[in-house]
Amino acid sequence: MSVIPAAEIAAAVAAQRDMATVLFDTLRQDGLDEPGVTRDPYGPGEQRAHATMADAGERMGLEIARDPAANLYMTLPGRNREAPSVMLGSHLDSVPHGGNFDGAAGVLAGLLSVAALQRLGLTLACDVTVMGIRAEESIWFQVSYIGSRAALGTLPDGALDARRIDTGRTLAEHIAECGGDPTPLQRHQRFLDPTRLRAYLELHIEQAPSLIEAGKPVAVCTGIPGNFRYPDVRIEGSHDHVGLPRRFRRDAALAGAEFAVALDRLWEEHDARDVPMACTLGRFHTDTALHGMTIVPGSFHFSLDVRAYDESVLAGLDRRVDAIIAGIEQRRGVRFHLGAKARAAVGHVDPTIRVALLAGATELGVPALELGSPASHDAAAFAAAGVPMGMLFVRNANGSHNPHEAMNIDDFLAGASIMTWWLATRLGG
Amino acid sequence: MSVIPAAEIAAAVAAQRDMATVLFDTLRQDGLDEPGVTRDPYGPGEQRAHATMADAGERMGLEIARDPAANLYMTLPGRNREAPSVMLGSHLDSVPHGGNFDGAAGVLAGLLSVAALQRLGLTLACDVTVMGIRAEESIWFQVSYIGSRAALGTLPDGALDARRIDTGRTLAEHIAECGGDPTPLQRHQRFLDPTRLRAYLELHIEQAPSLIEAGKPVAVCTGIPGNFRYPDVRIEGSHDHVGLPRRFRRDAALAGAEFAVALDRLWEEHDARDVPMACTLGRFHTDTALHGMTIVPGSFHFSLDVRAYDESVLAGLDRRVDAIIAGIEQRRGVRFHLGAKARAAVGHVDPTIRVALLAGATELGVPALELGSPASHDAAAFAAAGVPMGMLFVRNANGSHNPHEAMNIDDFLAGASIMTWWLATRLGG
Repeated sequence: MSVIPAAEIAAAVAAQRDMATVLFDTLRQDGLDEPGVTRDPYGPGEQRAHATMADAGERMGLEIARDPAANLYMTLPGRNREAPSVMLGSHLDSVPHGGNFDGAAGVLAGLLSVAALQRLGLTLACDVTVMGIRAEESIWFQVSYIGSRAALGTLPDGALDARRIDTGRTLAEHIAECGGDPTPLQRHQRFLDPTRLRAYLELHIEQAPSLIEAGKPVAVCTGIPGNFRYPDVRIEGSHDHVGLPRRFRRDAALAGAEFAVALDRLWEEHDARDVPMACTLGRFHTDTALHGMTIVPGSFHFSLDVRAYDESVLAGLDRRVDAIIAGIEQRRGVRFHLGAKARAAVGHVDPTIRVALLAGATELGVPALELGSPASHDAAAFAAAGVPMGMLFVRNANGSHNPHEAMNIDDFLAGASIMTWWLATRLGG
Repeated sequence: MSVIPAAEIAAAVAAQRDMATVLFDTLRQDGLDEPGVTRDPYGPGEQRAHATMADAGERMGLEIARDPAANLYMTLPGRNREAPSVMLGSHLDSVPHGGNFDGAAGVLAGLLSVAALQRLGLTLACDVTVMGIRAEESIWFQVSYIGSRAALGTLPDGALDARRIDTGRTLAEHIAECGGDPTPLQRHQRFLDPTRLRAYLELHIEQAPSLIEAGKPVAVCTGIPGNFRYPDVRIEGSHDHVGLPRRFRRDAALAGAEFAVALDRLWEEHDARDVPMACTLGRFHTDTALHGMTIVPGSFHFSLDVRAYDESVLAGLDRRVDAIIAGIEQRRGVRFHLGAKARAAVGHVDPTIRVALLAGATELGVPALELGSPASHDAAAFAAAGVPMGMLFVRNANGSHNPHEAMNIDDFLAGASIMTWWLATRLGG
């Protein structure tokens, strides 16, 4: 039980409402790219968001630092500056034409929590750092958790050579353009030592309507899914005339369709057994340079993302995908060229943090759900590096990765108050 | 039985081998657009092919004429110039990066047959006209049989406003640019009177490998499929985050995939009952401006071509398509916007011509198959207008509508000899 009553903590967070509103508005203006906002990683959009947040941190008197990957760190010093610190973070990039809250809400929640601690006059036992993370959205470089893994020295080999889908320039070039230094990253040199981190907390909007459905403002995360991905699969069949009888066809698009339907069935089966997973074929298309109404499609392209909360479920899905492909190749006379494969490990939530966050919600009178994260998050990179990790989700209508995200500011403040409560009660004594 | 022996007819056609080789080579050079050839309708590619053929016809001493749709007519006068005439035709346009034979082989076969008649010193009872038809390939204007239907006054309403997919200009503009006159076409004024046509014969490469499979050089057509088409269907779902649980998704691409697989099953069922049909989703794609690996596709586009040889089969398929769509819309929370719908009637082959062509093959010692046309052809437009129609298919490897079409010149001459035999025996006496 905190020495400071929960109501006082909630009031200190509520007092930051105007700061939150102004910062969200500024971020929206920074990234405006109708419809929605675009904060392109290691590009002008993300740069403006980093400048806005660094400016806010400076005005709060926080210590500002950056690492070779150009991540932003804003630190409130604690009593013992040598003690392992707490990190409050999320990312500041977005998908193209995305919403204003995916990522940025977590960085703001960190700043707000620190501002609330300042208002309460609390100096914590250790440093608390708000981290503005780079390049989390994998749509751009087809690599996930770039900023957080760069900081932790766990960026996969070859990642610095990945090219941004729109500019065609490499991640290394983009990092250098934004004031970073790719050289130490190439050597997997880490900026953050996991053993020097006491915890990593991240607040994020929910990217599904489970909280809307449940009528609750906040959820405490039970786990982050791992995934495997094929960013660019090509099916090779044969371009033929529209009148070709079925027995002669090698229709690449139909092979893709059969694959998609088979995966959807697989998901349906897992749902029926209450085993959570998801699969998405986000890009799914005939060859726009060659396709036509009177041509049997001879080539087809798709991306695949398969995710689950359990490594063994993921491994099982991996095997099923291979088996489905082998069957289709045989039946339809086509060939799947899978291309590169990416993986992200399951992100395990620290049970002590999870229980504490739920206790905080109860103390503060905030109705909270326990929820598996539908999406991947930087928090998973910290968990994979051995940092005790916890996450909070805030109710959000219309999903994310689209311009229609809709988070209520009261729900956001409720989430931030749980984060502040955790800091005050766990580190304030 | 002809007064001229079949062997003499075959020899007169075989003597045209060099002419055929030279003309095919010239046409290929005219249309070269690697990979393959592009003879864009009412554009430079088709114009060059028309000029080459008109030049060949002039050198043969044929009467050259053009109609308001800029179709080309090359006539060998008969003994009675008032008698209903015979038309030997096919089209001179191609798909983008198509092969050299689809269409053009039929016009050449007409010229060769006429040249063989000239060599034999035969004057027929009536005029014989070789027709170089415009704009048969529906990929360009999303309208089928443009040239032949314009000549017959049966172009559908609105066709002249159709825009070519690459130039964005209307059919009317394109016709005017190529020396035609869209005004009479607008009024459905016909240039060809079906009652003044004794027969329409068309030779075409086979667009499937049935003749390859059967080991025969030529087939006599038993019918041309009718079709219904949706050139541009859009499925409207919801763009969402990759982590969204299945019960919340409205995945437009998966709806498209389920539709494609359902149609393929329908085709499989028809095949099992020996009811010939075909369906093709030639364009089949997520929205390239909006799609991404981590976004559930909220919009999807496809084209649909469904064809069959029997009007009642076609009507049944039309109903099944509607039912499949209704089911998917309900299950997946998506909406199919079907857009424009086009139809082409079944093309019935004249039984007397069919039997005669088979008899000719037997007389000439050419092994011939009886075969339903896998594809649509201008011949169907003539049949629909009431002209007795027959078709010959020539063996061709690798299908058509691609750069790898491969027709053997001997097979082509065998097909042309049947056409010549028909003219000599039916009209030469």
